[in-house]
Formats: sequence, structure tokens, C-alpha cells
Amino acid sequence: MPTTLADFQKVEQYLTDHQNDFIETLKTFLRIESVSADSKFIPEIKRGAEFVEKQLTSAGLETKIYETAGHPIVYGSWLKAEGAPTVMVYGHYDVQPADPYDLWKTPPFDPDIREGHIYARGATDDKGQMMTHVNSVASWLKVVGSLPVNVKFVIEGEEEVGSDNLDKFLSEHQEMLQCDVAVVSDTSQFAPGVPAITYALRGITACELKLTGPGQDLHSGLFGGSVANPANIIARLVASLHNAEGQVQIPGFYDDVLPLSEQERNGFANLPFDEPALFKALGVSEGYGEAGFTTLERRWARPTCDVNGIWSGYQGEGPKTIVPSIAGVKISCRLVPNQDPEKINSSLESFLRELCPASVDFQYKQYHSCGGLVFDTDSGWMKSAGIAIEHAFGVSPVFIREGGSIPVVSTFKEILGVDTLLLGWGQSTDNLHSPNERFSLEGYRQGTLASARLWQELANL
Amino acid sequence: MPTTLADFQKVEQYLTDHQNDFIETLKTFLRIESVSADSKFIPEIKRGAEFVEKQLTSAGLETKIYETAGHPIVYGSWLKAEGAPTVMVYGHYDVQPADPYDLWKTPPFDPDIREGHIYARGATDDKGQMMTHVNSVASWLKVVGSLPVNVKFVIEGEEEVGSDNLDKFLSEHQEMLQCDVAVVSDTSQFAPGVPAITYALRGITACELKLTGPGQDLHSGLFGGSVANPANIIARLVASLHNAEGQVQIPGFYDDVLPLSEQERNGFANLPFDEPALFKALGVSEGYGEAGFTTLERRWARPTCDVNGIWSGYQGEGPKTIVPSIAGVKISCRLVPNQDPEKINSSLESFLRELCPASVDFQYKQYHSCGGLVFDTDSGWMKSAGIAIEHAFGVSPVFIREGGSIPVVSTFKEILGVDTLLLGWGQSTDNLHSPNERFSLEGYRQGTLASARLWQELANL
Repeated sequence: MPTTLADFQKVEQYLTDHQNDFIETLKTFLRIESVSADSKFIPEIKRGAEFVEKQLTSAGLETKIYETAGHPIVYGSWLKAEGAPTVMVYGHYDVQPADPYDLWKTPPFDPDIREGHIYARGATDDKGQMMTHVNSVASWLKVVGSLPVNVKFVIEGEEEVGSDNLDKFLSEHQEMLQCDVAVVSDTSQFAPGVPAITYALRGITACELKLTGPGQDLHSGLFGGSVANPANIIARLVASLHNAEGQVQIPGFYDDVLPLSEQERNGFANLPFDEPALFKALGVSEGYGEAGFTTLERRWARPTCDVNGIWSGYQGEGPKTIVPSIAGVKISCRLVPNQDPEKINSSLESFLRELCPASVDFQYKQYHSCGGLVFDTDSGWMKSAGIAIEHAFGVSPVFIREGGSIPVVSTFKEILGVDTLLLGWGQSTDNLHSPNERFSLEGYRQGTLASARLWQELANL
Repeated sequence: MPTTLADFQKVEQYLTDHQNDFIETLKTFLRIESVSADSKFIPEIKRGAEFVEKQLTSAGLETKIYETAGHPIVYGSWLKAEGAPTVMVYGHYDVQPADPYDLWKTPPFDPDIREGHIYARGATDDKGQMMTHVNSVASWLKVVGSLPVNVKFVIEGEEEVGSDNLDKFLSEHQEMLQCDVAVVSDTSQFAPGVPAITYALRGITACELKLTGPGQDLHSGLFGGSVANPANIIARLVASLHNAEGQVQIPGFYDDVLPLSEQERNGFANLPFDEPALFKALGVSEGYGEAGFTTLERRWARPTCDVNGIWSGYQGEGPKTIVPSIAGVKISCRLVPNQDPEKINSSLESFLRELCPASVDFQYKQYHSCGGLVFDTDSGWMKSAGIAIEHAFGVSPVFIREGGSIPVVSTFKEILGVDTLLLGWGQSTDNLHSPNERFSLEGYRQGTLASARLWQELANL
């Protein structure tokens, strides 16, 4: 028997009554030091996976912990909503290292509540955000005895170290993981009081280039001016990547870029974006980038070409007058939907190679790529999410893009063929990856409520 | 009573008869581990200074060891050639560190003679070369009882660590050090069998530039494309230093450059220069530089602008997708005679500063400069040296330039107002500053003979 809005209202009451219990559960979760980057935390990673499995089991899901070559993946499902859509919830129980510990006001693994926030490593990224969906599912099953939709939880333990074993898991269990849409809460609201649905992500392609000139560093007096200096050459190559208008000069770079619609540009322009405050926080006096685009357009919807690192010769104190033997650079391009990462990377390589003089050895290494994604903001999934968020937050969400890449979202599209709803309950000021990470209790409450409503809305599709 | 060529012939015979004694003396000198860079060798530095003083005293000079804030300077003079020119002989008794010891075929401070060479740290740089003048002076005074000219020896112990205390010594003892010309044997012959007089040196001016963009490294996805990336900017600045023809673009850079005469260019072109062998040794397939000039012209007589080091962002293994906060570069320009180092450095700074976007902080630090020098190859000093070398080596010397800078030669010009005769008896293949440093016994013999003849020739001026 399908669930109804009246059922949801009972769930909503239950959520209100049990908010403190959800906070206590989250605190227990946050005490687990599930740092994925450092092998000394492996027992805590195991505890993290077991904690998640226990929560899902208690909620009423069938669960299994899948071992991988790295950290385990927790899987849980409830599939009794016959004829209703199936939703995959993705999250991660691992956290960033907490160093430097001495910059934390309270210990990172001893959650502290102050000024309406819970402070701990993983509070927002991603334990707190992920738990909103565990809470909502548990409440539906507790109060109503069933869920409006089928759910499949995939909660991994390697998100902070590159999700190395997730793709293999998804590929090997494609049938088990069949679903209609994915939900991920690992992003942020646009601003306090401005909830958001993220409908596009930039992709990325990256490389490392190593140039070798002379066989060893040379005396710049004896030989300077007569042989190619790889540091000067690498600077020329990098400088050639942009013209004076900030446009990337890699051949074909913009060929496949989907232009921003007027509607999207207007949408961005109407967001309550405090640009001076952002630049102040970043420590720059003003923005800089591709001519003809606003800061939000540049961050979210335009492709880039940035040096991530460059090195050559002597970097110590004082002068040392050499012609260096070797120069290296790491370059990454953020890509927008419809650009082909492999094509861009190959074009980048050819472009740089052609500029390199014959007497300089050119070694190019291509790094992992992932394409940009944009989802249809008029889809039923989006509309359902919009209603759920408006109910929980009291305002309609804004539609935003994200400048970063979330490779798992590409993987869901490629392997499972589904769109992802990126529903962030946190704030960009929550110090994720930094000391004093936090998550607002109100965001936790609203996120749980929105999640509970989302299941009901998705059932109507 | 002035000395005569007949006197010189007696000296020449004495040199022939006593060559083995000179080799033994040099071996004793080379056993002293007078490494100036490492304070654990300070007792050996002291022994080095005392050894030199003893040699000069034995030769018949009045001597004194001058203490400095660093290592001592040995001074010796013989000033009884009334009416004759006064010649300053400069050299250094300190040596480069001998590391890595395990690459030496025989221990660096246990001189070994094989295949016509003496192998030891300091053999050519500069103990062996400097001793040719001590030997010649000693022989004249022994055989003839007087010298054709007045001589002043200044032998320092900090050449390999920047001669920090030499300028002060020269300034404070200007009257004592008055002379007509200086002689330095610390360079090389052009090639085996091709003795050379070096008549020009390049100067140098150098800087370090630090650019700061955002206050900390930023996530290249969240912010890339919207703020100036200091690594990209520094690459653009560096790339702007040259045009496609390899010409330096700093405003006014070439304004004061003295053009090479046709005679000089022809002289360079006629030298027995094995360009393929040089490039092979340097590990490059071909030369590279300013259009319209040969390799020797580029190395000796054209100004340059080389990056000596560059750094920004992440330099470790694998990708790291950041917009770096800071980028730095060290740049040095080799200068040719008549260019003003301060003017060039200021122009470089203005040029780079103008190219730097307003949102990037620009910090420029000027390093020590020294001008290029060219001496008149038609001077009496040069002619005298030519005759002396031709007598000792059996062929006329070629006139060459040197791409590096020897700051003490500038100092002699600035403080004492004199030209320097740069008479190298070594070879560029003598492994100076490297393991298995050596000096050919024939070069030692010929250099000593040339020195002895030089005094007689200079007396005729």
C-alpha cells in the first residue's frame, strides 16, 4: 500500500520528538576516529563501517559489509516499495586527518556543541550529512512500517583518499545496485538560509610535464645564453596556455563547451552572492579570469587551466647562478559539461610539445580525468527535491553549480546510468578539511526532515 | 741595474733544472686540506696561509699575514725595481670541498702523479696555477738577485666562498696595494696546445621575485578560474623576458652593449672550437639562444637572462589540485661590458612589476651585481703577456673572453684602477670543483716559465 502525505506528517512529528536522540547518535559516530589516510587508524575505520551497518540494520535495512582492497563499503537496502522508484543514497564514513590538533578549540574526536553547532572532525563531511538520510529512513520504518520508495545505501570508507575501490565495487555489483536516481549530501547550501540543489559539476583533467635540458645544472656564466634553459622554456609553455583575455589557448578547448543559457546566467546573477566578502576571505583584492564572465560563472561554468605546482633549479636562500637541468610543472584543467577530458588532455600535450624546442626532452604524464556533468533542473527528481527542501527549510532552494569535481557522480552516470541529486545541508564556512569542522544542528534537523519528505515526493513520480 | 734577457735565460735554465723541486713543493701544498667552506677545516686554512707566507718569505719577499673577519690574507712584496712597473699577483690558497670522496681515484689530499698530471683538490684551482708565480719570483731572486719589476702578492683564503673580506682589505690598504697591473692565473687555456689570454669577462645582476596570490592554497575546483594563479602569472612574467628570436625584452637591455667588432667575431670563428663535443659533454642535442650569434659569441659576449630557480605549489608525487598561494623565481642576467648592472636590474624590476596583475602581491629582491669588463688587447700589458706565453708554450696565445664573472677583477679595476692579465695555465677539462681535479705538469712548467718571462717583458714598458 503506497504511503501518503499523512504518513509523512507522522514521521515529521517523530523527527521533532527525537531530534536529541539523532544528535546523540551522531556524537557517538563522531567519536570514531575513522581517518582513511593513515593506516594507524585502520581499527577505527573498521569501527566506522560497523557503526554504519548497525545503524542501517537497526533502521530495518538488510545490510552487508563488503571488504575491498582498501577500506570496507557498507551496503544496506530496503526494497519492499513495489512499483516505486529505487533511490541510491551515497555517503562516506571516513574523515580527513584532524591535524593540526592544536588548532582545534575542542578535541576533534570529542564532539562539542556550542552556538548551535556540533564541532568535530567529520561533522559535516560527511557523517552528519549522511546521517540525515539514515535518520529519515529509520523514522519512516519505525513510524509507518514502510518507506515510500526503495532505498539502497552505499557508504564507503575511502572518499577522502580518492575512492580507489568504489568504481570496482559499482562495476561488480551493477545488478544489485540498479536504481533510478542517486542522492548525495556532501555539498553545501549556498549560504545560511539559502538552501541549494547543485545541478552541475565541473570535471577535471590533469598532467605533469617534465623538461630536461642539459644533463646537469650548468654554470650560468660559462654556458648561459648558449643552451635552452628548461625553466625559461617551461615558463613560456605555461604562459602560452592563456591569452591576454584569460582565454585558454589549447586548440579546440572551447569547441564542445555548452554555453550558459541566459536563464542560468540570470539565476547566478540573482543569487545573494557577497563577492567582496569571498575575496576578503581568500586574501585577494579582486577577481581575475576569463574576460566577459562573472566570478560565479568563472567558478562554476567555465573551464580553466591552472598550474598546481612548478619547480626547477635552486629554491634555497640567496642566489645560485645555474642553468637548471630539469624543470617540471603540474597542470590541471577544470572542465565543464560536454568537454571530453581525454581529448582536452591530448590537445594540451600536443600544444605544449609543439612549443618545446628540439634540444629539450619532453616527458608528459597524463593523470586521471573525469568529465563535467549537468543535470536537467526541470526533471521530476529535481522538482521532488525542491518541494522537500522548501518544506524543511521554509524557502525554495536555489539552483547552483559546483566548481569542483565529485567523481562518484560521474561514475553513477557512467556505470549505473542515473542522475544524482546533490543536496547539501552544510555551509561552505563549516571548516571542512580544516580544524574546528562543524555542522549546524538546525541544518542537521532540516536535512533530516527534507530527506524524509523527499522519499514521499519521489514516490509520486 | 735593470735586468736583461740574458738574466732571464739564466732563470730559464734554473727552472729547467729545478722542475722536480717545484713539483715537490706543490705536492706539499696540496696535502693541506684548506677547504674554506667548512669550519672544521679552519686549522688547515691556517696551515695553508702559513705555507704560502713561508714560500714567499723563502723566495725573498717581505710578508705579512692579515687576519680578516673570515680567513687570513697573505701579503708579500718585493719593491726594489726602482722605476719599473709594479705588478700585483692575486691567487687563493683555499679550495673547494672534496666531496664526494668516493668518486676520487686517489685521495683528494694525497697528490698522485699519473699520465703527466698531478691529481689533487686544488691542483689547478688555484694552488698549482698560483704557485707558478711564486716559483718564478723565487727563481729570479735566487739566480739574479733581483726582479725585473716590483711585485705584490695578495693570496686570499675565501675565493671559494665569495671573497667576502677581500674588498674590505683592498679598500683599507689601497696605498700599500698601488700597482700598475694585476696578474691572475685562475682561468684555463682555450684547449690543450692553445694557450689563451682572457681579455673580457661578463658581469652579472640577479634578483629573486616572490608573487603572492590568495592567502593560502585554494581548491582549484572551487576557486580556479576566478582568482589570479601566481604560478601562471610568474610563468607569464618569465616568458615575457624573451621574444621568439631569443632577444631579452627588458627595456633598454641592449642600449649600452658594446657591439662585437668584426675582428673579434673573426677571432672567435677561427678558434679551434669543437662545438659538437661541447654539446655532447653538456648533454644537449644542439645549441639555443639569441638569433644571429654563434655559440661562442652567446657564451662570451652577449648578455643573457636565465631562470636559476622557480617554485610554486605542489612538487610531490601525483596530482594535487590547488591554486597555489605563492610563486617564486630567481633570475640572473649575465652582462657584457658597458651595461650598467644597477640600471638593468631596476629596468627588470619595473618590467616585471608592470606585467603583474593588481591582485597579486609583488616582492622583488635585488642581489649583488658586478659589471662586465673588457681589456684592450693592444695594450702593452697584453703584448708582454703574449710574448711571454709564446716563449713558454711555443705558440702565440689566442685572445678569448670568459662567460663567467670574476668579481675580484672588477674590484681591482674599481678600487685600484688597474687592468688584470688573466693568464690561465689549466684546461677546462681539469675537473675543477669536481672529483679528480688535476693540473698537467707541462702546464705547470710552461706557466712558471711564462711567468718568469712576463716579469722581464713588463719591465720594458
